[in-house]
Amino acid sequence: MKRSPPPVTATTTAWSSSKPPLLRFLHTCYADFLPEAAGAVADYIPELGKADPAHFGISLATLDGHVYEVGDTKVPFTIQSMSKPFVFALALDTLGAERVESVIGVEPSGDPFNSIRLNAENHPFNAMVNAGAIACSGLLHADKGDGAFEFIRQALGRFAGRELDVDEAVYASESATGDRNRAIGYLLRTNSVITENVPAVLDVYFRQCSILVTARDTAVMAATLANRGINPLTEEQVVTPYAIARTLSVMTSSGMYDYAGEWIYRVGIPAKSGVGGGILAALPARLGLGSYSPKLDKHGNSVRGIKVCETLSAHYDLHMLNRSDDARHSIIADYNIGKNPSRRVRRPQEQEILARHFQEVRVIELVGTLSLSNVDYVSRRLAGSPRPEFVIFDLRRVTATTRAGARLVAEAFQELAELGVTVILSGIKRTSREWATISEWTRRLGNIRDFYLLDTAIEWAEDQIVYRYGGSIDFLETTELAEQPLLAGLSEAEIADLTALCTVRTYQQNEKVIAAGGEATSLFFLRSGVVHVTLPDGIRLATLTAGMAFGEMALLEPTRSADVLADMSATAYEVAIRDFERFREQHPRAGERIMRNLAQILADRLIVANAKVDLLTSG
Amino acid sequence: MKRSPPPVTATTTAWSSSKPPLLRFLHTCYADFLPEAAGAVADYIPELGKADPAHFGISLATLDGHVYEVGDTKVPFTIQSMSKPFVFALALDTLGAERVESVIGVEPSGDPFNSIRLNAENHPFNAMVNAGAIACSGLLHADKGDGAFEFIRQALGRFAGRELDVDEAVYASESATGDRNRAIGYLLRTNSVITENVPAVLDVYFRQCSILVTARDTAVMAATLANRGINPLTEEQVVTPYAIARTLSVMTSSGMYDYAGEWIYRVGIPAKSGVGGGILAALPARLGLGSYSPKLDKHGNSVRGIKVCETLSAHYDLHMLNRSDDARHSIIADYNIGKNPSRRVRRPQEQEILARHFQEVRVIELVGTLSLSNVDYVSRRLAGSPRPEFVIFDLRRVTATTRAGARLVAEAFQELAELGVTVILSGIKRTSREWATISEWTRRLGNIRDFYLLDTAIEWAEDQIVYRYGGSIDFLETTELAEQPLLAGLSEAEIADLTALCTVRTYQQNEKVIAAGGEATSLFFLRSGVVHVTLPDGIRLATLTAGMAFGEMALLEPTRSADVLADMSATAYEVAIRDFERFREQHPRAGERIMRNLAQILADRLIVANAKVDLLTSG
Repeated sequence: MKRSPPPVTATTTAWSSSKPPLLRFLHTCYADFLPEAAGAVADYIPELGKADPAHFGISLATLDGHVYEVGDTKVPFTIQSMSKPFVFALALDTLGAERVESVIGVEPSGDPFNSIRLNAENHPFNAMVNAGAIACSGLLHADKGDGAFEFIRQALGRFAGRELDVDEAVYASESATGDRNRAIGYLLRTNSVITENVPAVLDVYFRQCSILVTARDTAVMAATLANRGINPLTEEQVVTPYAIARTLSVMTSSGMYDYAGEWIYRVGIPAKSGVGGGILAALPARLGLGSYSPKLDKHGNSVRGIKVCETLSAHYDLHMLNRSDDARHSIIADYNIGKNPSRRVRRPQEQEILARHFQEVRVIELVGTLSLSNVDYVSRRLAGSPRPEFVIFDLRRVTATTRAGARLVAEAFQELAELGVTVILSGIKRTSREWATISEWTRRLGNIRDFYLLDTAIEWAEDQIVYRYGGSIDFLETTELAEQPLLAGLSEAEIADLTALCTVRTYQQNEKVIAAGGEATSLFFLRSGVVHVTLPDGIRLATLTAGMAFGEMALLEPTRSADVLADMSATAYEVAIRDFERFREQHPRAGERIMRNLAQILADRLIVANAKVDLLTSG
Repeated sequence: MKRSPPPVTATTTAWSSSKPPLLRFLHTCYADFLPEAAGAVADYIPELGKADPAHFGISLATLDGHVYEVGDTKVPFTIQSMSKPFVFALALDTLGAERVESVIGVEPSGDPFNSIRLNAENHPFNAMVNAGAIACSGLLHADKGDGAFEFIRQALGRFAGRELDVDEAVYASESATGDRNRAIGYLLRTNSVITENVPAVLDVYFRQCSILVTARDTAVMAATLANRGINPLTEEQVVTPYAIARTLSVMTSSGMYDYAGEWIYRVGIPAKSGVGGGILAALPARLGLGSYSPKLDKHGNSVRGIKVCETLSAHYDLHMLNRSDDARHSIIADYNIGKNPSRRVRRPQEQEILARHFQEVRVIELVGTLSLSNVDYVSRRLAGSPRPEFVIFDLRRVTATTRAGARLVAEAFQELAELGVTVILSGIKRTSREWATISEWTRRLGNIRDFYLLDTAIEWAEDQIVYRYGGSIDFLETTELAEQPLLAGLSEAEIADLTALCTVRTYQQNEKVIAAGGEATSLFFLRSGVVHVTLPDGIRLATLTAGMAFGEMALLEPTRSADVLADMSATAYEVAIRDFERFREQHPRAGERIMRNLAQILADRLIVANAKVDLLTSG
């Protein structure tokens, strides 16, 4: 049967003719396996026999939520045995692992999926054969009663990211012809694996097998398994990572029936197939694959689907045991405040204290997943260097934290606490999933502080150092123009003349002193209080206390590039640029000296900025 | 039996009393399981019965090459069945997968390790049972003849990172009592699995089982399995990643005999034990564990060793299927040269061209492992934005490239090439393993350039843009002082007076013009040619062409902070600082103007540096 080229339903790209390599690969798979004639459509249920054997769809969902689709990825078909892993995961979370494991084993059976044989304890071998799946449905029925099927249907919908329906014709057909499964049901009850009304349990099971999905749905469901239970499209946590790992384990050892060893050896991706023609493969932390093609081999697996899995694994070397990683990546920058101080402009006395004690504040910026290996590496790296008084862990780029990683982080914090080190976290919101995971372990630790912005965390630690080593920050103190670094080296007479040109301004807390985009018509010398300079996008450039100039770029630029706001009530000397120009005409040496001071201030800032660039690019 | 506290042999740390959390955990394991009395020392060979049942050692090797050790980690014992995975991997690499797989299966047997039963094809079920292991030794004997054992001994030494010896007493004992294995050997020959002299093959096998290792060796050997065949201590590639993935597969499905399903479900770490009391566990991309404790359970597995594996997996959530990762981490920065130009200081005409065409050079800085997911994500991100003429991939922070990642990279490059985009690689040495992997695929692509330094890559792309859009860079052109941005706004008379103070200097290629650390007694205006400014640590700060000043920080600082070297023959105007001071005395307005120009130049550089910091921290 000749077919037209497959419809491409992937996101259109800005590069007209361009296809990402992975999509191109899926198109090649589609073209290569479309002529495959082997296999036969399942016909043990009359309704299944009506499937179009030509249908072929491949879909691949990435864990950042992109879905590739080639071919008949929108054609609905019944989920059949592919429901088993999801219902098993659901049972583990709903009833607890102990209850589930007390009646269902986890060893491969070596038998076909519909075998009626039980293990030595008269329990189903595992949840991937019919007996185990019926036992799962029975456990959920015992807990949810008549609501069991609706509970399952809604949960499967959360895996797929959309509401799923039932194919009533297939359900009726399954129910009418399901005597083997009825026999299994009664066998389970005689062995006390289920204690419920057998027809009611089987009704749940037949309905669950008749849920309609597409290849695209299957890919998203597989991606949810691969993504520790979080649907990559909806970002909902559908089941726990614990249930996912156990479900993938059973898929690995028993998902492909008596072909398990070969499947691990040759493909190495946990997978499950259904007699409806679907196959799903979930590669943890990588991707979910869904395919649909109704012709099955003698094991009951989709012929084309198996070929797609084998080819994908071989072509891209996706075997789950062929992983590489390097814990050393997890530290993206590691420095002290000597190399990267906060954006708070410090006065000379504070500068001096910080220059003496810069090694007391260590900043470690982390990236990626916090796992055993990463945190262990960080701990060793910390232990191998002189002990600071403050350690700031910046987690802005950490996007996943395993419970083990969080526990190790907590253990590392405890270690630091016992040694008198104060731990500060930045880059993590208290409302985030990562915070929940970490605080599960760190709740009992007293000495942890957190600030969302790294700069605020550094500033806080600097303040502690300043206080600790004899400095004091008196925000009510007022300073005169002679103390301004921008005016250093001017004579008393020059200062007096400049003072005469100034107006003293008073600002309330949160008042905007300078607005970005406005004309730069004056410069300011902060006399008391605190102001901060922020870019229009909210990035805080500097925090200034009395004795510092701001708006001084008016000497070079006609337009304000940043906002200045008062952090508390503040006073400042303001000089209009046209008055300042007159002052420079009258005092050319003072004018040159001020420009030189400005150049010096900018040169110092450039050194700090370049040091930060070097920190971040010397990986 | 009461024992003294375990000797701590881990690296001493700078924080006197401090132990990394992982080491503390291993100490807890040791203390918790030391009292464990269950099990019995193997006694089927008289020599094995002599082992001290109290011995207990735990070692854990990380993939960055750190080894933790607690307890009796230096006590030698015979490797026994733990040799099987290594010899299987060796056979795969030496003889090819096809040859090995033609006589040894990969399905679990469901039988004890010393079963004489073969599968339906009269082949051993897998390489983890004695029959399969003897078949492996036979294959190597067929290839290496009398040198087979020495070949194996040396290879196992490369896994361990040191030369390994044989326990001659155990060997003699194995050989004297090995009739069951002899029976297996002859059964294999009658089924043509082996064709060699049976006693010679068994001699290899008995010797291989009698190789002496310690818990520490076992951890390093396991870490080599976990590290895609690269020994993390010696960094030697011992076997291929292909052989490793297949070996770990067989360990997963059959390493723990008839306990495979439970082991995957509960522990989820590929493992192998030996009747000598050793157990090894290899978690891909994470760690290798080795333990030694001679008392065995009824399956022949070390009782304490199994407990260590179970506890480690549960405590740190190390199940191999419980992985998380996020491809979005792989891009650490993505920008164009508008945001981060090269350090080459451009002249006005060039600046203008680059300002119009800054979107034509895109830079993507990658981090971590180049895998399917990462490269796919990068491809999609590129495809979703306007197409530039040049794409620079900076791989400085990429420390591992899978063959699949490299192939996808090559496919992405090919895609770009077909669209007329020039691809440039930076941060990768042509002598590196990554380069070898990538160039295996990219060799046939013509339009790829590589520069080790990112800045050089950006500079090269900028040059192409300048040439392409009508600019020309004439390095022989000479410029006069009036064209210097630092002197902009000076009158002709002021320029003339300053010119009179200058001496024209000539420099040969590679000549040092300024030495870092020296007194800053003059400033320079480049008249022709090219010089560059580098920090003492080799970081290139800027490349300058005619018309630019250098050493101008002498106006602010008494000491030179960087070297300046001539890239080609060059001429410059030099002005002594003391002459320049006199000039400023005479022309105070010019002096102020120059300082203002300097402040402006520094302010521009600060904007660039801050933009780069924001690029790198906005992840």
